[in-house]
Amino acid sequence: MLRSHHCGALSSKNIGEEVVLSGWVQKARDLGGMTFVDLRDRYGITQLAFNLESNSELCMAARKLGREFVIQIEGKVIERSSKNAKIATGDIEIEVSKLKVLNASKTPPFTIENETDGGDDLRMQYRYLDIRRNPVRENLILRHRLSTETRKYLDAQSFIEVETPYLIKSTPEGARDFVVPSRMNEGQFYALPQSPQTFKQLLMVGGIDKYYQIVKCFRDEDLRADRQPEFTQIDCEMSFIEQEDILNMFEGLTRHLLKEIKGVELQQFPRMSYDDAMRLYGSDKPDIRFEMQFSELNEVCQQNDFVVFDSAELVVGICAKGCGDWTRKQIDKLTDFVKRPQIGAKGLIYCKYNQDGTFKSSVDKFFSQEDLAKWAHKMGAQKGDLMFLLSGDTDKVRKQMNELRLEIGQQLGLRDPKVFAPLWVVDFPLLEWDEETQRYHAMHHPFTSPKPNDIAKLDTDPAAVRANAYDLVMNGSEIGGGSIRIHDKDLQKLMFKHLGFSEEQAKDQFGFLMNAFEYGAPPHGGIAFGFDRLCSLFGGQESIRDFIAFPKNNSGRDVMIDAPSIIDNSQLDELHIKLK
Amino acid sequence: MLRSHHCGALSSKNIGEEVVLSGWVQKARDLGGMTFVDLRDRYGITQLAFNLESNSELCMAARKLGREFVIQIEGKVIERSSKNAKIATGDIEIEVSKLKVLNASKTPPFTIENETDGGDDLRMQYRYLDIRRNPVRENLILRHRLSTETRKYLDAQSFIEVETPYLIKSTPEGARDFVVPSRMNEGQFYALPQSPQTFKQLLMVGGIDKYYQIVKCFRDEDLRADRQPEFTQIDCEMSFIEQEDILNMFEGLTRHLLKEIKGVELQQFPRMSYDDAMRLYGSDKPDIRFEMQFSELNEVCQQNDFVVFDSAELVVGICAKGCGDWTRKQIDKLTDFVKRPQIGAKGLIYCKYNQDGTFKSSVDKFFSQEDLAKWAHKMGAQKGDLMFLLSGDTDKVRKQMNELRLEIGQQLGLRDPKVFAPLWVVDFPLLEWDEETQRYHAMHHPFTSPKPNDIAKLDTDPAAVRANAYDLVMNGSEIGGGSIRIHDKDLQKLMFKHLGFSEEQAKDQFGFLMNAFEYGAPPHGGIAFGFDRLCSLFGGQESIRDFIAFPKNNSGRDVMIDAPSIIDNSQLDELHIKLK
Repeated sequence: MLRSHHCGALSSKNIGEEVVLSGWVQKARDLGGMTFVDLRDRYGITQLAFNLESNSELCMAARKLGREFVIQIEGKVIERSSKNAKIATGDIEIEVSKLKVLNASKTPPFTIENETDGGDDLRMQYRYLDIRRNPVRENLILRHRLSTETRKYLDAQSFIEVETPYLIKSTPEGARDFVVPSRMNEGQFYALPQSPQTFKQLLMVGGIDKYYQIVKCFRDEDLRADRQPEFTQIDCEMSFIEQEDILNMFEGLTRHLLKEIKGVELQQFPRMSYDDAMRLYGSDKPDIRFEMQFSELNEVCQQNDFVVFDSAELVVGICAKGCGDWTRKQIDKLTDFVKRPQIGAKGLIYCKYNQDGTFKSSVDKFFSQEDLAKWAHKMGAQKGDLMFLLSGDTDKVRKQMNELRLEIGQQLGLRDPKVFAPLWVVDFPLLEWDEETQRYHAMHHPFTSPKPNDIAKLDTDPAAVRANAYDLVMNGSEIGGGSIRIHDKDLQKLMFKHLGFSEEQAKDQFGFLMNAFEYGAPPHGGIAFGFDRLCSLFGGQESIRDFIAFPKNNSGRDVMIDAPSIIDNSQLDELHIKLK
Repeated sequence: MLRSHHCGALSSKNIGEEVVLSGWVQKARDLGGMTFVDLRDRYGITQLAFNLESNSELCMAARKLGREFVIQIEGKVIERSSKNAKIATGDIEIEVSKLKVLNASKTPPFTIENETDGGDDLRMQYRYLDIRRNPVRENLILRHRLSTETRKYLDAQSFIEVETPYLIKSTPEGARDFVVPSRMNEGQFYALPQSPQTFKQLLMVGGIDKYYQIVKCFRDEDLRADRQPEFTQIDCEMSFIEQEDILNMFEGLTRHLLKEIKGVELQQFPRMSYDDAMRLYGSDKPDIRFEMQFSELNEVCQQNDFVVFDSAELVVGICAKGCGDWTRKQIDKLTDFVKRPQIGAKGLIYCKYNQDGTFKSSVDKFFSQEDLAKWAHKMGAQKGDLMFLLSGDTDKVRKQMNELRLEIGQQLGLRDPKVFAPLWVVDFPLLEWDEETQRYHAMHHPFTSPKPNDIAKLDTDPAAVRANAYDLVMNGSEIGGGSIRIHDKDLQKLMFKHLGFSEEQAKDQFGFLMNAFEYGAPPHGGIAFGFDRLCSLFGGQESIRDFIAFPKNNSGRDVMIDAPSIIDNSQLDELHIKLK
């Protein structure tokens, strides 16, 4: 070893010991007679002291050390005259007797500090330097701890981690696949898995009973901010279970992680139907760290000759508690917010419930004080509150109001990243209508089991069929989702039919699964957690990017290694493909 | 849950309890008045009893159950009249009161028994049924335990598991890459990693200090038996270490695994230089479960007018202890063995050391009894032993003799899969000459550090340069290999030059690593274990295939899902490629 201790190890207990340390020069301070160097490694910082008088040569050498030089020193642990209570090694310093430069460093393109002066692009290009910064390294350590604790919990519950293949078969259903041309099978391609879904189901058919895997998945989608072409799932499946068993098992996992990693102990997670979530929050992933539920106001808003409301499918309102004193400017900013093209509202109607009991709204022309009192009653508003209303087509107006609610919650500081508010959303629709293709798509995937009582409705009212599907939501983000699967071959065939698969297509793409169902498939179901998102939530941050060691940018590029890149023609030849 | 207990849980302690079990019908026996069904799941087998007299309807239903039907039963745990001491549940059976068929099964294409009647192809096609068999499932559980214990050990040693990317950059050096066309970056390709080598080095530059990952890697090579296009590594790297630290750390890991998984406690692992391994065993991965080392015999064999020996670069012999009574037929079979094209020897010379002190050899025409006595002396042969000699070019004859030694060891039962004989092979050459390209290639990879004292020889005698590289060998298989890496940019440039890279090529392919070395790269090194092979060794089996849940065949095909396969033209269009 090029060290006897790491840079976070020494304390006053070690005073008098001869030690060898290695690490990076965080900074050097030349105080005339003394030069101090902060030596850094993954574990901490130790102060090195060089005395000009007692060893001028060494001290002169120390003065030449630049930031991020890699050095090895020998010396004696001594008590520090001015102690630093903020760091573990703050009581001591090293009286250095030998110094060796292991590697020099150019001046880094940004500062290696908790708050860096480097922009995102520079940080990504020099990610290996960015990782030296405490916040990024701590995120990676958090990620490691989360995976360790996940495995610990699932192992204790008799789950087996099984590796499923990465070179699989492309299926046009769902998102776009990344594909891999086969050299040995001319004209044919593997696909990288979007998830191990079918394999974990086959493992259940194979009697593995309880499976999990922390696994990379791939989707070739246009990348919005905070989406990565490769991402990590905690993927799980169980046999001989019902929905309730899955919810309990993985609520247990989440509770375990919160307790072990964050020291937070939560009671049983609340549950909400998809319909309620949409009605009360306009979202299938409500942030329930704060209330501010929607009130549906058609009854008290329509038929007052206000055509905006009268022509709307839905009038919906929320009450911002204690915001009755908000200025016109504040309200205008919110109006601009909902009118942004991404949100798309035509306008925002407000109504203040004044302290004197009167109301002041933006539609006083159309609504009397009595009318507005009815609004307040419906929304549970009290004196000093501020009500906001939106109207329009149900789906659209709910989405808009959801954005408004989250924005107001943010402004009011109601979305504290240190608070964890999990929620099970259950009873999802099985199918959703796709305008573009003019047919129903599976809301989760084609293997999701409809609720038995709803199967008959597949023919008559497909949109009304509920699935045994569930999402685990935390602080407004979906962290996991899953379902009870179909294990009956006839029901699976029926599903494929309703999803517009011809028999041949179904056989071609999922024949192996249909075959497997002929040989004693057990009832089974599972869940998959988005591990990157889980990490960022536990880290209290919005972006997943800094919880991934080497992320890609929004064009799917790794700017550090410069990938993707062109390849040799000889490689293309061997793969039996050419560029267009 | 569709069960109160699993099928391995119940014992005489549970007698009298009402239970619910679910599982697969292993077999049903109709004994007239009674029908017995063995119900199986991952955890065991429980016997179900159906009484024709007391519940004829239920018993008749039970008689209709086919093999591999999935059923759920309710019943009472009762004592078995004829107990089965071989299984954990052998003291009890279930007096069944309710029976529900959860899923029927066609007759499986092979028997779901420890010894199956299914051939390899059928087993692969119906892998989900094959996994139901105990031996395959136990292999997967062994694999899970090995990864769990690996993580436990490395976590305790402060290693952090960091996920490195799968969509990286193609580099022509080394084996062939699998590539992934980029839709968003026209004409460009990602590559799947052959190993996370450069990324783990960047993590060291990033100060992660101790990294590991259990990770899939990909190589598009022509598949010999027991090679897979995707395979798993335990990939590790450490900073501020020397070779000795790595050997100790990962010897510790291997010892931990042997102890925890196999109950085998080993002392310090022996070490051998690459040169000695080649000289004594003709292999850089000697199976040292048995001796039978090579003796180099030029001195006592040449200049006897036996042109075969006289013209040879090397005459080498081994002594098969106690095999002096082997028949001519046995020896002829070995001769045929070494003459097989895969081995390529021209012939095999033997010499028996008879019990009466005389010698009988296949070259008695050329060698006197005194000559042969010298052979025996050199090889340490005693009365009753049998000596074998091969001659030719050193490299070739060593390879041939290695094969012969292993074959004889096999025949003598000296290669017991329950014995574990690890060995560190050290001091590998840095470079090896490639006949095809007429230049030196890196024996490990271009990032391996030469021994400091040998650097000067890079120009004068490249083949003589030794590397700080090491392999961990067990029972004749390489289970891990690694090296101390280059961390100095100038040395790395020199290496690229000696490997025939132009400056531009080096910059194009590994510029990011060279850049990283400019910013304070610490001394570092690491190792990677072939996890599939490790599993098969621990499982005492030759083939890795049954330690992989869903392996591919020798054409790189997954015959179960039928991948690779053709993809839509629209997919090709989007990826800016077309078929040749």
